[in-house]
Amino acid sequence: MSARRNDSHHEDMETGADRQTDRLDFAAHLNSESLHPADIADHLEHLSPEKRVSAVNSMSKEDAAETIAELEENIAAEVLENLDIDKAAEIIAEMDRDDAADVLDELDDEHRDVLLEKLTQEDSEELRHLLRFDPDSAAGVMNSELILLDQNMTIDEAITHIRREMEEEKESPYYGYVVDSHDILIGVLSLRDLMLARPGVKVGAIAAGQNVVSVTFDTEKGEVANLLSHYNYLAMPVVDYEGHILGVVTYDDIMDIIHEEASADMLGMVGADPEESCDTPWLESVRKRLPWLVVNLLNSAFSASVVYMFEGTIAQMAVLAVLMPMVANQAGNTGQQALAVMIRQLSRDIFDQKKAWLAVLREARIGLVTGLVMAVLSFLGSWWFTGNYMVGVVMGGAILCDMFLGAVAGGSIPLVFRYLGRDPAQASSIFLTTITDGAGFFIFLGLASFFLF
Amino acid sequence: MSARRNDSHHEDMETGADRQTDRLDFAAHLNSESLHPADIADHLEHLSPEKRVSAVNSMSKEDAAETIAELEENIAAEVLENLDIDKAAEIIAEMDRDDAADVLDELDDEHRDVLLEKLTQEDSEELRHLLRFDPDSAAGVMNSELILLDQNMTIDEAITHIRREMEEEKESPYYGYVVDSHDILIGVLSLRDLMLARPGVKVGAIAAGQNVVSVTFDTEKGEVANLLSHYNYLAMPVVDYEGHILGVVTYDDIMDIIHEEASADMLGMVGADPEESCDTPWLESVRKRLPWLVVNLLNSAFSASVVYMFEGTIAQMAVLAVLMPMVANQAGNTGQQALAVMIRQLSRDIFDQKKAWLAVLREARIGLVTGLVMAVLSFLGSWWFTGNYMVGVVMGGAILCDMFLGAVAGGSIPLVFRYLGRDPAQASSIFLTTITDGAGFFIFLGLASFFLF
Repeated sequence: MSARRNDSHHEDMETGADRQTDRLDFAAHLNSESLHPADIADHLEHLSPEKRVSAVNSMSKEDAAETIAELEENIAAEVLENLDIDKAAEIIAEMDRDDAADVLDELDDEHRDVLLEKLTQEDSEELRHLLRFDPDSAAGVMNSELILLDQNMTIDEAITHIRREMEEEKESPYYGYVVDSHDILIGVLSLRDLMLARPGVKVGAIAAGQNVVSVTFDTEKGEVANLLSHYNYLAMPVVDYEGHILGVVTYDDIMDIIHEEASADMLGMVGADPEESCDTPWLESVRKRLPWLVVNLLNSAFSASVVYMFEGTIAQMAVLAVLMPMVANQAGNTGQQALAVMIRQLSRDIFDQKKAWLAVLREARIGLVTGLVMAVLSFLGSWWFTGNYMVGVVMGGAILCDMFLGAVAGGSIPLVFRYLGRDPAQASSIFLTTITDGAGFFIFLGLASFFLF
Repeated sequence: MSARRNDSHHEDMETGADRQTDRLDFAAHLNSESLHPADIADHLEHLSPEKRVSAVNSMSKEDAAETIAELEENIAAEVLENLDIDKAAEIIAEMDRDDAADVLDELDDEHRDVLLEKLTQEDSEELRHLLRFDPDSAAGVMNSELILLDQNMTIDEAITHIRREMEEEKESPYYGYVVDSHDILIGVLSLRDLMLARPGVKVGAIAAGQNVVSVTFDTEKGEVANLLSHYNYLAMPVVDYEGHILGVVTYDDIMDIIHEEASADMLGMVGADPEESCDTPWLESVRKRLPWLVVNLLNSAFSASVVYMFEGTIAQMAVLAVLMPMVANQAGNTGQQALAVMIRQLSRDIFDQKKAWLAVLREARIGLVTGLVMAVLSFLGSWWFTGNYMVGVVMGGAILCDMFLGAVAGGSIPLVFRYLGRDPAQASSIFLTTITDGAGFFIFLGLASFFLF
């Protein structure tokens, strides 16, 4: 086992050998200091809804708040809905506001309003404020609790201020945000900067030379993630159009976003919902996937109509129907490889048009060379199989052309989608297959009817 | 524009409107404080190799070190190889050791040895030590510069010690690591813990109650990333089998790993190299992709052999060849949706067998219901198209069966691969298509020869 904890109980659980015993042990540990909230949350997710609620009920409000923040949002919402309303409100009040807002967002409107009524006016206003933002924007994932440093504070005053805030705040601050008298963000100081600066200097003086990187509240959260990861920052301040500071997006939220965004591409590519997981209710998955399956059916009907044009050719020589799907399949696979590389590129880097089209050229080259190799192999294979070398020529020629086309299409589709303002990944594989199938059938059957009859 | 910087030069660049002017301006800014090393690195990547080298040559060794750490590793290696050897050694000495080791790993052996000879004995030994580890393990991405706190230090001594280390070290420390007299890791203290603790207390006393989470040096880097993101830690200590601390993996490396791993699944699924990007030399991509394309060819030859069994049936009724690819295509798409959801699940969570098979059951349900809908649509469509309602029945029946099978196969393949000790994603789409194609052709043509003749 590679993850170590100096805690024998935890190691028992990790082996997973005797989960039943773990569950029994587990109840005794719920209120103890020995389990990390993320681990408690993992365990709760394995329990029945009733047991989850009673487990949360038995926790202190502080433990419950930390645990609920670590639960999958839909499960967290379900737990809150089934708790006593006063207990639920206590827990919400204890949570970091960004986490609380995420969970409240999952509740139905009525339940959410009742809960918000139970909070202090300050908490409830702040949460309503956060709930108004698009959950996929910087403001939707930001935390509004942050440490502001007035530009006229000295370093010593700032350190005292931060120390006092640290005792009160629930989330660790990584930076102090220097603002002018209108709360306009003018600088960011790390704890390190503060510890190394001379005590009497004003924070505004240190901030003066800085280039503050910030994002506006409506920035797409994936872009915030790319920027934070680009600059290796722990946190990114969020501002309005005038530069007033609103909150901060921290690296822990970003790690989740990076993970989601990258696998969202994989799901989107094949026409699943980018946010779908095994925890998505299955009927919701049916509803989300069906439209793309219908698109796929229409697209494949188009490819089928290409085959229909050559029905007479096939009737004369049925072996063509045997070889035909191989052409389409091979080109489809080549295209998907190009597609995956291009989608990765687009999701990762700041867009660069020249680099993107050079990447298509690169795929075209790869398609040409791999196409030549596969063409020779399939020429030999189908010559041997049919005993007719002209069938081999038709097969090889079709594989070469369609694989080249597949590589170019796979590289270009995400760029075209992006140009059209669409998500470069969404259903790209479905459109790719339409091209490689349609063109593959046409080229193969076209060459066949020209050369073989 | 959503990313803001209080720096008009940077904003000019972001618009990308006049890149030529940017490049001219850029030279003047290389040594200034106004550009983040990550941005300088981005710009260098757009220059020719010669210009890159001369740009790095004009920088101070500190700026050069930070910039080279941000470059793509292959580009960084190329720059170092073309710099004057003494300048290159100076820069390497200035870099964080984990970054330096990553770049040295890309150099050819001879060049690396010459460079290491130029360093101080301590630097060179430390780097040789890091270079011996598997680059995909925790030790391969860890930094060996960390702040150790002897368990007998008081809080006050620890703070003074950290402050002194901060002034020297290049990378910001997030935690102090408490060790006993044998360098065995016994606790982790955050800066916050230190600032809030009473000055006279011994750090060992605070560490005593902790469950320290650490990883062994041979832990796969993706697993380190999952753990760090699970616990929302800033850094994860790396230990040997006896618990001696070796180094620390920090969140900035983890963000890159999470991104790589998640998109690696997408690439692996279609048989591209999981680490491939647009910057991979194209002939290397050809070499890496060809084996899977050959596997795909063999697999599709298998599907073709199924069609061949029914050559006589197709010769009698060529319209079957028109409809046949639609069945396979539809089931393939359904299967890929299931596949993507399952791969995401496996890469994200700590594995749970029961949950995994429940997820397959979920996919089976989705496959059944979407299959029914698509079966009705394709029954109607092919009845209308052929005027023969029995063709519609055959088409609908085949779509239903093959989509159900595709969903189950898509959900199961990653689990089977995992059970066999393989990467759950690698080439999974290729094997899925073999099943959905082969079964689809067999079911469709089998039903056709039974019901239509």
